Amino acid sequence: MKMQSYREIREAIASHHLTPAEAIRAAYEAITLADGHIHAFTVLADEAMRQRDGAMDGPLAGIAIGIKDIVDTADFPTSYGSPIYENHRPAADAAICAMIRSKGGHIVGKTVTAELAFFHPGPTVNPHDHAHTPGGSSSGSAAAVAAGMVPLAIGTQTGGSVIRPASYCGIAGFKPSFRLIPTVGVKTFSWTLDTLGLFAASVADVAAAAADTTGRHLDQPSRGKPLRIAIWDDDGRREVSADMAAAVERIAGIAGRQGHQVITLKEPEAMIEADLCHGLLQEYEGALSLAHEMRTAPQLLSDKLRDALEGASRIDSSAYDGARRTARRARLAARELFDEVDIVLSPAATGAAPRGLASTGSAEHNRLWTLLGCPAVTFRADRDGPLPLGIQMTARFGKDALLLAAAAELEAVSNAE
Amino acid sequence: MKMQSYREIREAIASHHLTPAEAIRAAYEAITLADGHIHAFTVLADEAMRQRDGAMDGPLAGIAIGIKDIVDTADFPTSYGSPIYENHRPAADAAICAMIRSKGGHIVGKTVTAELAFFHPGPTVNPHDHAHTPGGSSSGSAAAVAAGMVPLAIGTQTGGSVIRPASYCGIAGFKPSFRLIPTVGVKTFSWTLDTLGLFAASVADVAAAAADTTGRHLDQPSRGKPLRIAIWDDDGRREVSADMAAAVERIAGIAGRQGHQVITLKEPEAMIEADLCHGLLQEYEGALSLAHEMRTAPQLLSDKLRDALEGASRIDSSAYDGARRTARRARLAARELFDEVDIVLSPAATGAAPRGLASTGSAEHNRLWTLLGCPAVTFRADRDGPLPLGIQMTARFGKDALLLAAAAELEAVSNAE
Repeated sequence: MKMQSYREIREAIASHHLTPAEAIRAAYEAITLADGHIHAFTVLADEAMRQRDGAMDGPLAGIAIGIKDIVDTADFPTSYGSPIYENHRPAADAAICAMIRSKGGHIVGKTVTAELAFFHPGPTVNPHDHAHTPGGSSSGSAAAVAAGMVPLAIGTQTGGSVIRPASYCGIAGFKPSFRLIPTVGVKTFSWTLDTLGLFAASVADVAAAAADTTGRHLDQPSRGKPLRIAIWDDDGRREVSADMAAAVERIAGIAGRQGHQVITLKEPEAMIEADLCHGLLQEYEGALSLAHEMRTAPQLLSDKLRDALEGASRIDSSAYDGARRTARRARLAARELFDEVDIVLSPAATGAAPRGLASTGSAEHNRLWTLLGCPAVTFRADRDGPLPLGIQMTARFGKDALLLAAAAELEAVSNAE
Repeated sequence: MKMQSYREIREAIASHHLTPAEAIRAAYEAITLADGHIHAFTVLADEAMRQRDGAMDGPLAGIAIGIKDIVDTADFPTSYGSPIYENHRPAADAAICAMIRSKGGHIVGKTVTAELAFFHPGPTVNPHDHAHTPGGSSSGSAAAVAAGMVPLAIGTQTGGSVIRPASYCGIAGFKPSFRLIPTVGVKTFSWTLDTLGLFAASVADVAAAAADTTGRHLDQPSRGKPLRIAIWDDDGRREVSADMAAAVERIAGIAGRQGHQVITLKEPEAMIEADLCHGLLQEYEGALSLAHEMRTAPQLLSDKLRDALEGASRIDSSAYDGARRTARRARLAARELFDEVDIVLSPAATGAAPRGLASTGSAEHNRLWTLLGCPAVTFRADRDGPLPLGIQMTARFGKDALLLAAAAELEAVSNAE
């Protein structure tokens, strides 16, 4: 199960060792071999679409991309992981798809999402052990990259739906600062939280892909300057396996040996409070966003989602307004926190991917950073038997390039050790 | 041209002088009489839809509502004012439509919008003088209320697309605090700016409608407490007709006689700078939001919109990021400003509705408040010949109820004088 490296493909094309059409064909061959077992895709491009896009020009030419099926595509059915939208065909591409296409990228197909990007899982399995969840809700995107089917996939995160599946699948996941990538054309769950993200084999790959897709300078080399890297001390509020704790320690040790200043940082009170508000914000907004589905087809929603939305529709607007104020205070606290440190280091998940496909795992290590709008990145830092363990690095809102450079440096040293 | 009062209809239904079905029928009769001249609607409910919804229950039962055709409806074609979307039928209702329906409201049809809620106008005329624009981009919604066809209509504002047409048409328009009403299912132009708003005959009507639609306490009576009301001094940066200046003076005079403290407030420097950034933010985000249309059907966009989006697609992301920081500073300045005053009083437009239908007028008095996310309301304060003149009142983010109560008080005294 060799992964496809975004940068290696781009370099091979630039040096004429590979054509874009060959790179795309290789991706389809990998999908044909693997997806019968992994179930990462809901639909693939037909022959006409494959021919049309194979030889496009631009920074993403030759890059085969999987798009989470919560994101609108005009030429693929888009079902949002829900039987309500079986065979739905949007009128327009989402902004991210138009960006990808205008830069020469080739969308190979749509990837499995949990129902409406919430929790009810699809059929995707973890490529490292098929008896384990790949995580969610961006299950198919993470698994497609991990199984070597595509070098790049797009997901979304409202709680932990990019960082957690990337960690479970042993790949790099990048959740940019809030609204760095427009969510226009992405099925809304929570307009305060929904964030587009990217999956690739390594941090360097995901940074290059993010830079090429957005036209932003997100793939700058590490400046070699010592950073202030904080180990997150949440006083045991979040579950952490012993292996995961050791993985965080291991990366902190590397950071120290690389000359960075490693400190421990207690989670500020304002953030503890905000973390507790995440669920209320997500579900209150979800009940409004999905009011049409609740009104017209409640029987086609999973019990878990319907119960959550029914409960949320009884939340008073004053409780929601209070949660928004709590979130605002936490964002101000984050500004102060990131005056003191450059990077926060924490587990990407409670541990390795749980056994079974009924649950996609817990987002407890990720949701605060989604709520704060801070960029987050994960990479594989260790293993628990066959299953990977990812650590999470976060930084100040807007400091995406600094975060990616720091993570790429630590990942490279970690892999070399 | 008698307008339909939202509150009078609700009271007549509550006291059993009117049934919801009769109220809905009366609206369709008014539309039949008037819309051949006004051209406010793009499509009306067919007979089956009229029967189905006529007798629904809830706080909006009996209320006939026009929905701007930038807002998704599952049972009406939704064309966003663009030939690209001729006969497009969305898969789901927008959140606002689901809210309206779940509260018993009856959507009579879709109203004319400028192309993709930008500037290129539709066929709607100003009910007060058919040779004049009704304003835009929510042209049909404002005209439908002004011409007495419906008691309530929904619009959106990215620059001044609620307040300006309400002023031109002599009705009340309310642009709530940013995201008070979810924009899920509204075709995005600028995610930082797009705001849903309401039109009704008077401020008291629009406040009651907003309260019933959202379930929020937005229609509270004025507390009789003297407010600090500031006349906005922008040092002549925005065009104002003599009549409009006199209308603002007139309402300020009423406020003073009502016992409020009336002061003059110079526009803070941070807001002058933010005002200048509005266009860049709107168009940069518009170029991303409408990238699919630009990529697949540029020939079906108006020259004006295509030129704006082409220009915007060349804006560097660092200029956009700078504009976002400028907007953030202005929002902090607004928090300080609204420590000093409760309400800011300013023109709703440069003057009465301009002659001709080629332009929908200037948003220069409105766009700052959209960018700040502050609530804004307008009501008819005077006339310039047959054409109405509206003033604009704005308040601190989240102080929608206070703003509506203050505006309702001044409007009532103004109408009685």
